[in-house]
Amino acid sequence: MYAKPFFTVVLSEIILSLQNSRVKELVKLRESPRRRRELGLFPIEGLREIEVGIDAERNFTEVYFCPSFFRKRGEDILLHRFNETEAELFELGKDAFAKSSYRENPDGVIALAQTFDLQPSRLSLGASPLVLVLDEVEKPGNLGAVLRSAEAFGVNAVLLSDAAVDFFNPNVIRSSQGLSLRMPVAVGSKTESLDFLRAHNLRICGSGSKNAVPFWEGDFTNGVALLLGSEREGLGPFWIENQDESLVIPMSGSAGSQNLSVSAACFLSEAARQRFSQ
Amino acid sequence: MYAKPFFTVVLSEIILSLQNSRVKELVKLRESPRRRRELGLFPIEGLREIEVGIDAERNFTEVYFCPSFFRKRGEDILLHRFNETEAELFELGKDAFAKSSYRENPDGVIALAQTFDLQPSRLSLGASPLVLVLDEVEKPGNLGAVLRSAEAFGVNAVLLSDAAVDFFNPNVIRSSQGLSLRMPVAVGSKTESLDFLRAHNLRICGSGSKNAVPFWEGDFTNGVALLLGSEREGLGPFWIENQDESLVIPMSGSAGSQNLSVSAACFLSEAARQRFSQ
Repeated sequence: MYAKPFFTVVLSEIILSLQNSRVKELVKLRESPRRRRELGLFPIEGLREIEVGIDAERNFTEVYFCPSFFRKRGEDILLHRFNETEAELFELGKDAFAKSSYRENPDGVIALAQTFDLQPSRLSLGASPLVLVLDEVEKPGNLGAVLRSAEAFGVNAVLLSDAAVDFFNPNVIRSSQGLSLRMPVAVGSKTESLDFLRAHNLRICGSGSKNAVPFWEGDFTNGVALLLGSEREGLGPFWIENQDESLVIPMSGSAGSQNLSVSAACFLSEAARQRFSQ
Repeated sequence: MYAKPFFTVVLSEIILSLQNSRVKELVKLRESPRRRRELGLFPIEGLREIEVGIDAERNFTEVYFCPSFFRKRGEDILLHRFNETEAELFELGKDAFAKSSYRENPDGVIALAQTFDLQPSRLSLGASPLVLVLDEVEKPGNLGAVLRSAEAFGVNAVLLSDAAVDFFNPNVIRSSQGLSLRMPVAVGSKTESLDFLRAHNLRICGSGSKNAVPFWEGDFTNGVALLLGSEREGLGPFWIENQDESLVIPMSGSAGSQNLSVSAACFLSEAARQRFSQ
Protein backbone atom coordinates (compact mmCIF):
# COMPACT_ATOMS: atom_id res chain seq x y z
CA MET A 1 0.00 0.00 0.00
CA TYR A 2 1.19 3.46 -0.85
CA ALA A 3 1.90 5.45 2.32
CA LYS A 4 1.03 9.10 1.95
CA PRO A 5 4.07 11.29 2.59
CA PHE A 6 3.15 13.18 5.73
CA PHE A 7 4.73 16.51 4.93
CA THR A 8 2.90 17.12 1.70
CA VAL A 9 -0.05 18.21 3.80
CA VAL A 10 2.08 20.57 5.84
CA LEU A 11 3.38 22.17 2.67
CA SER A 12 -0.03 22.42 1.06
CA GLU A 13 -2.28 25.39 1.55
CA ILE A 14 -3.32 26.29 5.09
CA ILE A 15 -7.01 27.07 5.50
CA LEU A 16 -7.16 30.52 7.06
CA SER A 17 -10.60 31.85 6.14
CA LEU A 18 -13.42 31.55 8.65
CA GLN A 19 -15.70 31.43 5.60
CA ASN A 20 -14.00 28.37 4.13
CA SER A 21 -16.59 25.74 3.29
CA ARG A 22 -14.76 23.03 5.27
CA VAL A 23 -14.68 25.21 8.36
CA LYS A 24 -18.37 25.96 8.00
CA GLU A 25 -19.10 22.26 7.60
CA LEU A 26 -17.15 21.41 10.76
CA VAL A 27 -19.26 23.91 12.69
CA LYS A 28 -22.48 22.49 11.24
CA LEU A 29 -21.47 18.94 12.08
CA ARG A 30 -20.60 20.00 15.60
CA GLU A 31 -23.88 21.83 16.17
CA SER A 32 -26.48 19.89 14.22
CA PRO A 33 -27.59 16.30 14.84
CA ARG A 34 -29.54 16.57 11.58
CA ARG A 35 -26.44 17.48 9.59
CA ARG A 36 -24.59 14.55 11.13
CA ARG A 37 -27.38 12.24 10.04
CA GLU A 38 -27.51 13.74 6.52
CA LEU A 39 -23.79 13.30 5.88
CA GLY A 40 -23.25 10.26 8.08
CA LEU A 41 -20.28 12.03 9.61
CA PHE A 42 -19.43 13.37 13.07
CA PRO A 43 -16.46 15.26 14.51
CA ILE A 44 -14.16 13.78 17.14
CA GLU A 45 -12.04 16.36 18.89
CA GLY A 46 -9.00 15.84 21.05
CA LEU A 47 -5.89 13.69 20.93
CA ARG A 48 -7.08 11.16 23.46
CA GLU A 49 -10.54 10.79 21.96
CA ILE A 50 -9.21 10.41 18.42
CA GLU A 51 -6.79 7.75 19.61
CA VAL A 52 -9.62 5.78 21.15
CA GLY A 53 -11.46 6.14 17.83
CA ILE A 54 -8.48 4.86 15.82
CA ASP A 55 -8.05 1.90 18.16
CA ALA A 56 -11.75 1.16 17.82
CA GLU A 57 -11.30 1.12 14.03
CA ARG A 58 -13.65 4.00 13.34
CA ASN A 59 -13.59 5.14 9.71
CA PHE A 60 -12.05 8.58 9.47
CA THR A 61 -12.56 10.71 6.39
CA GLU A 62 -10.79 13.97 7.25
CA VAL A 63 -8.42 15.24 9.90
CA TYR A 64 -7.97 18.92 10.73
CA PHE A 65 -5.03 20.15 12.76
CA CYS A 66 -3.56 23.42 13.92
CA PRO A 67 0.00 23.33 15.30
CA SER A 68 -0.56 26.62 17.18
CA PHE A 69 -2.60 24.63 19.68
CA PHE A 70 -0.18 21.70 19.98
CA ARG A 71 1.34 21.10 23.40
CA LYS A 72 3.94 18.48 22.52
CA ARG A 73 1.77 15.63 23.65
CA GLY A 74 2.38 13.39 20.68
CA GLU A 75 0.37 15.27 18.06
CA ASP A 76 2.85 14.29 15.30
CA ILE A 77 2.64 10.62 16.19
CA LEU A 78 -1.13 10.81 16.14
CA LEU A 79 -1.18 12.49 12.72
CA HIS A 80 1.23 9.87 11.39
CA ARG A 81 -1.23 7.19 12.37
CA PHE A 82 -3.54 8.54 9.67
CA ASN A 83 -0.97 7.98 6.93
CA GLU A 84 -2.17 4.48 6.32
CA THR A 85 -5.84 5.39 6.35
CA GLU A 86 -8.07 6.95 3.74
CA ALA A 87 -8.36 10.15 5.76
CA GLU A 88 -7.30 13.45 4.18
CA LEU A 89 -5.34 15.88 6.34
CA PHE A 90 -5.90 19.64 6.38
CA GLU A 91 -4.05 22.32 8.29
CA LEU A 92 -6.13 25.15 9.70
CA GLY A 93 -5.06 28.61 10.79
CA LYS A 94 -5.55 29.49 14.44
CA ASP A 95 -8.80 31.40 14.04
CA ALA A 96 -10.28 28.87 11.65
CA PHE A 97 -9.47 26.06 14.07
CA ALA A 98 -10.85 27.97 17.05
CA LYS A 99 -14.08 28.48 15.14
CA SER A 100 -14.31 24.78 14.28
CA SER A 101 -13.48 23.63 17.77
CA TYR A 102 -15.95 22.59 20.44
CA ARG A 103 -13.56 23.33 23.26
CA GLU A 104 -12.43 26.33 25.23
CA ASN A 105 -8.86 25.09 25.23
CA PRO A 106 -8.53 23.04 22.06
CA ASP A 107 -5.56 20.74 21.66
CA GLY A 108 -5.29 21.22 17.92
CA VAL A 109 -6.84 18.11 16.35
CA ILE A 110 -10.35 17.44 15.06
CA ALA A 111 -11.18 14.38 12.97
CA LEU A 112 -14.29 13.55 10.99
CA ALA A 113 -15.46 9.97 11.23
CA GLN A 114 -18.33 8.05 9.71
CA THR A 115 -21.28 7.51 12.02
CA PHE A 116 -21.73 3.85 12.82
CA ASP A 117 -24.48 1.34 13.31
CA LEU A 118 -26.33 1.66 16.60
CA GLN A 119 -28.99 -1.02 16.06
CA PRO A 120 -29.52 -3.30 19.05
CA SER A 121 -28.60 -6.20 16.74
CA ARG A 122 -24.98 -4.97 16.81
CA LEU A 123 -24.75 -6.08 20.44
CA SER A 124 -23.55 -9.60 21.05
CA LEU A 125 -24.09 -10.73 24.60
CA GLY A 126 -22.35 -13.62 26.31
CA ALA A 127 -23.70 -15.67 29.17
CA SER A 128 -25.26 -13.84 32.14
CA PRO A 129 -24.65 -10.42 30.70
CA LEU A 130 -24.92 -7.18 32.63
CA VAL A 131 -26.81 -4.67 30.48
CA LEU A 132 -27.47 -1.05 31.35
CA VAL A 133 -30.57 0.59 29.88
CA LEU A 134 -31.00 4.36 29.97
CA ASP A 135 -34.48 5.60 29.12
CA GLU A 136 -34.91 9.04 27.56
CA VAL A 137 -31.46 10.21 28.53
CA GLU A 138 -31.16 13.87 27.59
CA LYS A 139 -27.95 15.39 28.90
CA PRO A 140 -24.87 14.44 26.88
CA GLY A 141 -22.61 15.10 29.87
CA ASN A 142 -24.59 12.67 32.01
CA LEU A 143 -24.55 10.03 29.30
CA GLY A 144 -20.79 10.35 28.96
CA ALA A 145 -20.25 10.06 32.70
CA VAL A 146 -22.47 6.98 32.88
CA LEU A 147 -20.57 5.35 30.00
CA ARG A 148 -17.34 5.78 31.97
CA SER A 149 -18.86 4.04 34.97
CA ALA A 150 -20.39 1.35 32.77
CA GLU A 151 -17.04 0.45 31.30
CA ALA A 152 -15.34 0.53 34.70
CA PHE A 153 -17.91 -1.85 36.17
CA GLY A 154 -17.73 -4.27 33.26
CA VAL A 155 -21.14 -3.64 31.72
CA ASN A 156 -21.51 -5.80 28.61
CA ALA A 157 -23.81 -3.47 26.69
CA VAL A 158 -25.56 -0.14 27.05
CA LEU A 159 -28.98 0.33 25.49
CA LEU A 160 -30.45 3.81 25.01
CA SER A 161 -34.22 3.64 24.91
CA ASP A 162 -35.87 6.64 23.24
CA ALA A 163 -32.73 8.70 23.71
CA ALA A 164 -33.39 12.44 23.75
CA VAL A 165 -29.75 13.17 22.97
CA ASP A 166 -27.88 12.39 19.75
CA PHE A 167 -25.29 9.73 20.50
CA PHE A 168 -22.80 11.52 18.21
CA ASN A 169 -23.11 14.80 20.13
CA PRO A 170 -19.55 16.10 20.73
CA ASN A 171 -20.15 16.33 24.47
CA VAL A 172 -20.99 12.63 24.71
CA ILE A 173 -17.57 11.87 23.22
CA ARG A 174 -15.84 14.37 25.42
CA SER A 175 -17.49 13.53 28.73
CA SER A 176 -17.02 9.81 28.12
CA GLN A 177 -13.34 10.53 27.35
CA GLY A 178 -13.86 8.87 23.98
CA LEU A 179 -15.36 5.67 25.39
CA SER A 180 -18.55 6.24 23.39
CA LEU A 181 -16.43 5.41 20.33
CA ARG A 182 -15.57 1.91 21.44
CA MET A 183 -18.25 0.73 23.83
CA PRO A 184 -21.06 -1.65 22.82
CA VAL A 185 -23.91 0.85 22.77
CA ALA A 186 -27.19 0.63 20.90
CA VAL A 187 -30.14 2.95 20.41
CA GLY A 188 -33.77 2.01 19.92
CA SER A 189 -37.37 2.82 20.73
CA LYS A 190 -38.83 1.61 24.01
CA THR A 191 -40.46 -1.34 22.23
CA GLU A 192 -37.30 -2.29 20.35
CA SER A 193 -35.36 -2.11 23.60
CA LEU A 194 -37.86 -4.27 25.44
CA ASP A 195 -37.88 -6.80 22.58
CA PHE A 196 -34.11 -7.00 22.72
CA LEU A 197 -34.08 -7.56 26.48
CA ARG A 198 -36.81 -10.20 26.29
CA ALA A 199 -35.11 -11.98 23.39
CA HIS A 200 -32.05 -12.34 25.61
CA ASN A 201 -34.08 -13.48 28.64
CA LEU A 202 -32.80 -10.64 30.75
CA ARG A 203 -34.39 -9.81 34.07
CA ILE A 204 -35.35 -6.11 33.93
CA CYS A 205 -34.63 -4.24 37.16
CA GLY A 206 -35.84 -0.67 37.02
CA SER A 207 -35.28 2.26 39.32
CA GLY A 208 -38.58 3.39 40.77
CA SER A 209 -40.16 4.40 44.00
CA LYS A 210 -43.54 2.66 44.09
CA ASN A 211 -43.52 -0.88 45.51
CA ALA A 212 -39.76 -0.71 45.23
CA VAL A 213 -37.24 -2.58 47.36
CA PRO A 214 -33.73 -1.30 48.16
CA PHE A 215 -31.45 -1.86 45.20
CA TRP A 216 -29.21 -4.27 47.13
CA GLU A 217 -32.15 -6.69 47.39
CA GLY A 218 -32.22 -7.07 43.62
CA ASP A 219 -30.59 -10.19 42.23
CA PHE A 220 -27.96 -9.14 39.69
CA THR A 221 -26.04 -12.40 39.52
CA ASN A 222 -27.69 -13.75 36.37
CA GLY A 223 -28.37 -12.03 33.08
CA VAL A 224 -29.87 -8.69 34.04
CA ALA A 225 -30.79 -5.32 32.58
CA LEU A 226 -30.45 -2.39 34.98
CA LEU A 227 -32.84 0.31 33.87
CA LEU A 228 -32.57 3.99 34.79
CA GLY A 229 -35.09 6.69 33.89
CA SER A 230 -34.53 10.22 32.68
CA GLU A 231 -32.97 12.74 35.02
CA ARG A 232 -36.13 14.79 35.23
CA GLU A 233 -38.95 12.33 35.04
CA GLY A 234 -37.73 8.94 36.17
CA LEU A 235 -39.32 5.93 34.52
CA GLY A 236 -42.64 6.37 32.73
CA PRO A 237 -45.58 3.90 32.55
CA PHE A 238 -44.11 1.81 29.70
CA TRP A 239 -41.14 0.61 31.70
CA ILE A 240 -42.96 0.51 35.03
CA GLU A 241 -45.36 -1.95 33.43
CA ASN A 242 -42.69 -4.01 31.72
CA GLN A 243 -40.01 -4.22 34.39
CA ASP A 244 -39.61 -7.38 36.44
CA GLU A 245 -38.53 -5.65 39.61
CA SER A 246 -38.62 -2.10 40.92
CA LEU A 247 -35.60 -0.98 42.92
CA VAL A 248 -34.98 2.19 44.85
CA ILE A 249 -31.91 3.89 46.22
CA PRO A 250 -32.95 4.63 49.79
CA MET A 251 -32.28 8.27 50.58
CA SER A 252 -32.39 10.15 53.82
CA GLY A 253 -32.79 13.84 54.46
CA SER A 254 -34.71 16.03 52.08
CA ALA A 255 -32.39 15.19 49.21
CA GLY A 256 -34.08 15.21 45.85
CA SER A 257 -33.29 12.67 43.21
CA GLN A 258 -29.68 11.83 42.58
CA ASN A 259 -27.69 12.65 39.50
CA LEU A 260 -27.95 9.93 36.85
CA SER A 261 -24.29 8.95 37.12
CA VAL A 262 -24.61 8.60 40.91
CA SER A 263 -27.66 6.34 40.53
CA ALA A 264 -25.83 4.30 37.90
CA ALA A 265 -22.80 3.97 40.17
CA CYS A 266 -24.98 2.62 43.00
CA PHE A 267 -26.61 -0.01 40.78
CA LEU A 268 -23.42 -0.98 38.98
CA SER A 269 -21.22 -1.22 42.05
CA GLU A 270 -23.82 -3.44 43.72
CA ALA A 271 -23.93 -5.64 40.62
CA ALA A 272 -20.13 -5.84 40.71
CA ARG A 273 -20.24 -6.77 44.40
CA GLN A 274 -22.78 -9.55 43.84
CA ARG A 275 -20.95 -10.92 40.83
CA PHE A 276 -17.49 -10.83 42.41
CA SER A 277 -18.78 -12.41 45.61
CA GLN A 278 -20.35 -15.38 43.86
CA MET B 1 -39.28 43.64 67.00
CA TYR B 2 -39.75 46.34 64.40
CA ALA B 3 -40.57 44.85 61.03
CA LYS B 4 -39.02 46.77 58.17
CA PRO B 5 -41.70 47.90 55.74
CA PHE B 6 -40.88 45.97 52.56
CA PHE B 7 -41.77 48.58 50.01
CA THR B 8 -39.43 51.27 51.25
CA VAL B 9 -36.66 49.40 49.48
CA VAL B 10 -38.59 49.14 46.26
CA LEU B 11 -39.19 52.87 46.33
CA SER B 12 -35.60 53.72 47.18
CA GLU B 13 -32.97 54.28 44.57
CA ILE B 14 -32.22 51.49 42.11
CA ILE B 15 -28.52 50.79 41.60
CA LEU B 16 -27.90 51.08 37.88
CA SER B 17 -24.20 51.85 37.55
CA LEU B 18 -21.80 49.01 36.84
CA GLN B 19 -19.22 51.11 38.71
CA ASN B 20 -21.30 51.22 41.90
CA SER B 21 -19.17 50.16 44.86
CA ARG B 22 -21.69 47.52 45.97
CA VAL B 23 -21.71 45.93 42.53
CA LYS B 24 -17.92 45.90 42.47
CA GLU B 25 -17.88 44.32 45.92
CA LEU B 26 -20.30 41.58 44.83
CA VAL B 27 -18.00 40.73 41.94
CA LYS B 28 -14.97 40.66 44.24
CA LEU B 29 -16.70 38.43 46.75
CA ARG B 30 -17.77 36.10 43.97
CA GLU B 31 -14.30 35.84 42.46
CA SER B 32 -11.89 36.08 45.38
CA PRO B 33 -11.55 33.60 48.25
CA ARG B 34 -9.24 36.13 49.88
CA ARG B 35 -11.86 38.87 49.79
CA ARG B 36 -14.40 36.50 51.31
CA ARG B 37 -12.00 35.79 54.16
CA GLU B 38 -11.18 39.50 54.66
CA LEU B 39 -14.81 40.55 54.96
CA GLY B 40 -16.17 37.32 56.41
CA LEU B 41 -18.91 37.43 53.77
CA PHE B 42 -19.89 35.30 50.81
CA PRO B 43 -22.58 35.53 48.13
CA ILE B 44 -25.42 33.04 47.83
CA GLU B 45 -27.18 33.19 44.51
CA GLY B 46 -30.49 31.68 43.54
CA LEU B 47 -33.92 31.36 45.11
CA ARG B 48 -33.55 27.76 46.13
CA GLU B 49 -30.07 28.18 47.56
CA ILE B 50 -31.02 31.28 49.54
CA GLU B 51 -34.02 29.47 50.98
CA VAL B 52 -31.82 26.65 52.17
CA GLY B 53 -29.57 29.30 53.74
CA ILE B 54 -32.48 30.99 55.54
CA ASP B 55 -33.74 27.66 56.84
CA ALA B 56 -30.23 26.86 58.05
CA GLU B 57 -30.24 30.19 59.94
CA ARG B 58 -27.34 31.71 58.08
CA ASN B 59 -26.76 35.37 58.94
CA PHE B 60 -27.58 37.53 55.94
CA THR B 61 -26.32 41.08 55.71
CA GLU B 62 -27.52 42.26 52.32
CA VAL B 63 -29.90 41.07 49.63
CA TYR B 64 -29.73 42.20 46.00
CA PHE B 65 -32.58 41.64 43.62
CA CYS B 66 -33.55 42.51 40.08
CA PRO B 67 -37.19 41.98 39.08
CA SER B 68 -36.24 41.85 35.38
CA PHE B 69 -34.93 38.34 36.03
CA PHE B 70 -37.88 37.16 38.13
CA ARG B 71 -39.86 34.23 36.74
CA LYS B 72 -42.80 34.24 39.16
CA ARG B 73 -41.35 31.48 41.27
CA GLY B 74 -42.04 33.08 44.63
CA GLU B 75 -39.41 35.82 44.55
CA ASP B 76 -41.67 38.20 46.53
CA ILE B 77 -42.28 35.65 49.24
CA LEU B 78 -38.56 35.04 49.51
CA LEU B 79 -37.79 38.76 49.80
CA HIS B 80 -40.48 39.13 52.46
CA ARG B 81 -38.71 36.51 54.54
CA PHE B 82 -35.88 38.99 54.97
CA ASN B 83 -38.15 41.58 56.57
CA GLU B 84 -37.57 40.21 60.01
CA THR B 85 -33.84 39.88 59.61
CA GLU B 86 -31.05 42.41 59.81
CA ALA B 87 -30.44 42.17 56.08
CA GLU B 88 -30.65 45.31 53.95
CA LEU B 89 -32.36 45.02 50.56
CA PHE B 90 -31.11 46.66 47.38
CA GLU B 91 -32.63 46.69 43.93
CA LEU B 92 -30.23 46.43 41.01
CA GLY B 93 -30.76 47.40 37.39
CA LYS B 94 -30.53 44.59 34.84
CA ASP B 95 -26.94 45.21 33.75
CA ALA B 96 -25.71 45.77 37.28
CA PHE B 97 -27.31 42.50 38.37
CA ALA B 98 -25.95 40.59 35.39
CA LYS B 99 -22.47 41.85 36.26
CA SER B 100 -22.85 40.76 39.88
CA SER B 101 -24.29 37.37 39.02
CA TYR B 102 -22.39 34.11 38.83
CA ARG B 103 -24.91 32.52 36.50
CA GLU B 104 -25.66 32.50 32.82
CA ASN B 105 -29.39 32.61 33.50
CA PRO B 106 -29.73 34.39 36.82
CA ASP B 107 -33.02 34.21 38.68
CA GLY B 108 -32.75 37.69 40.13
CA VAL B 109 -31.64 37.23 43.74
CA ILE B 110 -28.19 37.32 45.34
CA ALA B 111 -27.73 37.48 49.10
CA LEU B 112 -24.62 38.16 51.14
CA ALA B 113 -24.19 36.02 54.22
CA GLN B 114 -21.58 35.82 56.93
CA THR B 115 -19.07 33.01 56.55
CA PHE B 116 -19.43 30.49 59.32
CA ASP B 117 -17.31 28.32 61.54
CA LEU B 118 -15.81 25.31 59.78
CA GLN B 119 -13.67 23.97 62.64
CA PRO B 120 -13.93 20.22 63.14
CA SER B 121 -15.11 20.97 66.70
CA ARG B 122 -18.41 22.20 65.22
CA LEU B 123 -19.27 18.62 64.30
CA SER B 124 -21.18 16.64 66.88
CA LEU B 125 -21.28 12.96 66.12
CA GLY B 126 -23.73 10.46 67.56
CA ALA B 127 -23.12 6.75 68.03
CA SER B 128 -21.59 4.78 65.11
CA PRO B 129 -21.36 7.77 62.84
CA LEU B 130 -20.70 7.62 59.12
CA VAL B 131 -18.13 10.30 58.26
CA LEU B 132 -16.90 11.16 54.79
CA VAL B 133 -13.39 12.61 54.47
CA LEU B 134 -12.25 14.26 51.23
CA ASP B 135 -8.55 14.90 50.97
CA GLU B 136 -7.28 17.81 48.87
CA VAL B 137 -10.53 18.20 46.99
CA GLU B 138 -10.01 20.82 44.30
CA LYS B 139 -13.00 21.05 41.99
CA PRO B 140 -15.97 22.91 43.48
CA GLY B 141 -18.39 21.10 41.17
CA ASN B 142 -17.14 17.73 42.39
CA LEU B 143 -17.39 18.79 46.01
CA GLY B 144 -20.97 19.97 45.49
CA ALA B 145 -21.97 16.72 43.80
CA VAL B 146 -20.42 14.66 46.60
CA LEU B 147 -22.24 16.72 49.23
CA ARG B 148 -25.54 15.87 47.51
CA SER B 149 -24.74 12.17 47.66
CA ALA B 150 -23.49 12.47 51.23
CA GLU B 151 -26.77 13.94 52.39
CA ALA B 152 -28.79 11.39 50.43
CA PHE B 153 -26.91 8.50 52.01
CA GLY B 154 -27.22 9.87 55.52
CA VAL B 155 -23.60 10.84 56.12
CA ASN B 156 -23.30 12.40 59.60
CA ALA B 157 -20.39 14.70 58.82
CA VAL B 158 -18.09 15.64 55.97
CA LEU B 159 -14.51 16.55 56.72
CA LEU B 160 -12.35 18.35 54.14
CA SER B 161 -8.69 17.63 54.76
CA ASP B 162 -6.32 20.19 53.21
CA ALA B 163 -9.04 21.38 50.86
CA ALA B 164 -7.69 23.00 47.69
CA VAL B 165 -11.01 24.72 47.07
CA ASP B 166 -12.62 27.45 49.16
CA PHE B 167 -15.74 26.05 50.78
CA PHE B 168 -17.55 29.35 50.15
CA ASN B 169 -16.84 29.21 46.39
CA PRO B 170 -20.14 30.00 44.59
CA ASN B 171 -19.93 26.81 42.57
CA VAL B 172 -19.85 24.67 45.72
CA ILE B 173 -23.14 26.25 46.74
CA ARG B 174 -24.61 25.88 43.30
CA SER B 175 -23.53 22.34 42.53
CA SER B 176 -24.63 21.16 45.99
CA GLN B 177 -28.00 22.88 45.35
CA GLY B 178 -27.43 24.88 48.54
CA LEU B 179 -26.74 21.83 50.73
CA SER B 180 -23.29 23.20 51.60
CA LEU B 181 -25.15 25.84 53.63
CA ARG B 182 -26.80 23.38 55.96
CA MET B 183 -24.69 20.23 56.06
CA PRO B 184 -22.30 19.42 58.89
CA VAL B 185 -19.03 20.11 57.09
CA ALA B 186 -15.65 20.98 58.59
CA VAL B 187 -12.29 21.93 57.16
CA GLY B 188 -8.87 21.20 58.60
CA SER B 189 -5.30 20.21 57.90
CA LYS B 190 -4.47 16.53 57.45
CA THR B 191 -3.25 16.34 61.05
CA GLU B 192 -6.30 18.09 62.46
CA SER B 193 -8.53 15.77 60.46
CA LEU B 194 -6.70 12.69 61.67
CA ASP B 195 -6.84 13.92 65.28
CA PHE B 196 -10.58 14.44 64.97
CA LEU B 197 -11.13 10.96 63.56
CA ARG B 198 -8.94 9.32 66.20
CA ALA B 199 -10.62 11.28 69.00
CA HIS B 200 -13.91 9.80 67.87
CA ASN B 201 -12.50 6.28 67.53
CA LEU B 202 -13.43 6.07 63.89
CA ARG B 203 -12.12 3.32 61.68
CA ILE B 204 -10.47 5.02 58.69
CA CYS B 205 -11.17 3.29 55.37
CA GLY B 206 -9.29 4.90 52.52
CA SER B 207 -9.54 4.42 48.79
CA GLY B 208 -6.28 3.11 47.42
CA SER B 209 -4.92 0.50 45.14
CA LYS B 210 -1.94 -1.05 46.95
CA ASN B 211 -2.81 -3.94 49.26
CA ALA B 212 -6.41 -2.92 48.85
CA VAL B 213 -9.45 -5.15 49.13
CA PRO B 214 -12.73 -4.55 47.22
CA PHE B 215 -14.72 -1.85 48.95
CA TRP B 216 -17.57 -4.22 49.80
CA GLU B 217 -15.21 -6.16 52.06
CA GLY B 218 -14.78 -3.13 54.30
CA ASP B 219 -16.83 -3.12 57.51
CA PHE B 220 -18.90 0.05 57.59
CA THR B 221 -21.38 -1.00 60.26
CA ASN B 222 -19.69 0.75 63.17
CA GLY B 223 -18.32 4.27 63.43
CA VAL B 224 -16.31 4.73 60.25
CA ALA B 225 -14.61 7.42 58.20
CA LEU B 226 -14.65 6.84 54.45
CA LEU B 227 -11.67 8.63 52.94
CA LEU B 228 -11.33 9.65 49.30
CA GLY B 229 -8.27 11.24 47.71
CA SER B 230 -8.01 14.07 45.25
CA GLU B 231 -9.32 13.58 41.73
CA ARG B 232 -5.86 13.78 40.21
CA GLU B 233 -3.54 12.23 42.71
CA GLY B 234 -5.52 9.88 44.92
CA LEU B 235 -4.35 9.53 48.50
CA GLY B 236 -0.84 10.62 49.41
CA PRO B 237 1.58 9.05 51.92
CA PHE B 238 0.07 10.75 54.99
CA TRP B 239 -3.28 9.03 54.69
CA ILE B 240 -1.89 5.78 53.29
CA GLU B 241 0.16 5.52 56.48
CA ASN B 242 -2.64 6.52 58.80
CA GLN B 243 -5.59 4.64 57.37
CA ASP B 244 -6.83 1.45 58.99
CA GLU B 245 -7.90 -0.23 55.79
CA SER B 246 -7.31 0.34 52.09
CA LEU B 247 -10.25 -0.26 49.80
CA VAL B 248 -10.47 -0.29 46.05
CA ILE B 249 -13.30 -0.05 43.56
CA PRO B 250 -12.54 -2.95 41.24
CA MET B 251 -12.57 -1.77 37.67
CA SER B 252 -12.44 -3.67 34.44
CA GLY B 253 -11.40 -2.55 31.00
CA SER B 254 -8.85 0.16 30.56
CA ALA B 255 -10.97 2.68 32.44
CA GLY B 256 -8.95 5.25 34.31
CA SER B 257 -9.92 6.49 37.73
CA GLN B 258 -13.55 7.30 38.34
CA ASN B 259 -14.99 10.72 38.98
CA LEU B 260 -14.95 11.64 42.67
CA SER B 261 -18.74 11.61 42.97
CA VAL B 262 -18.93 8.15 41.40
CA SER B 263 -16.33 6.81 43.86
CA ALA B 264 -18.20 8.44 46.73
CA ALA B 265 -21.49 6.92 45.53
CA CYS B 266 -19.93 3.42 45.52
CA PHE B 267 -18.59 3.75 49.06
CA LEU B 268 -21.68 5.44 50.46
CA SER B 269 -24.23 3.12 48.87
CA GLU B 270 -22.29 0.13 50.21
CA ALA B 271 -22.26 1.71 53.68
CA ALA B 272 -26.03 2.26 53.39
CA ARG B 273 -26.50 -1.36 52.35
CA GLN B 274 -24.49 -2.71 55.28
CA ARG B 275 -26.19 -0.44 57.77
CA PHE B 276 -29.74 -1.09 56.53
CA SER B 277 -29.14 -4.83 56.41
CA GLN B 278 -27.99 -5.06 60.02
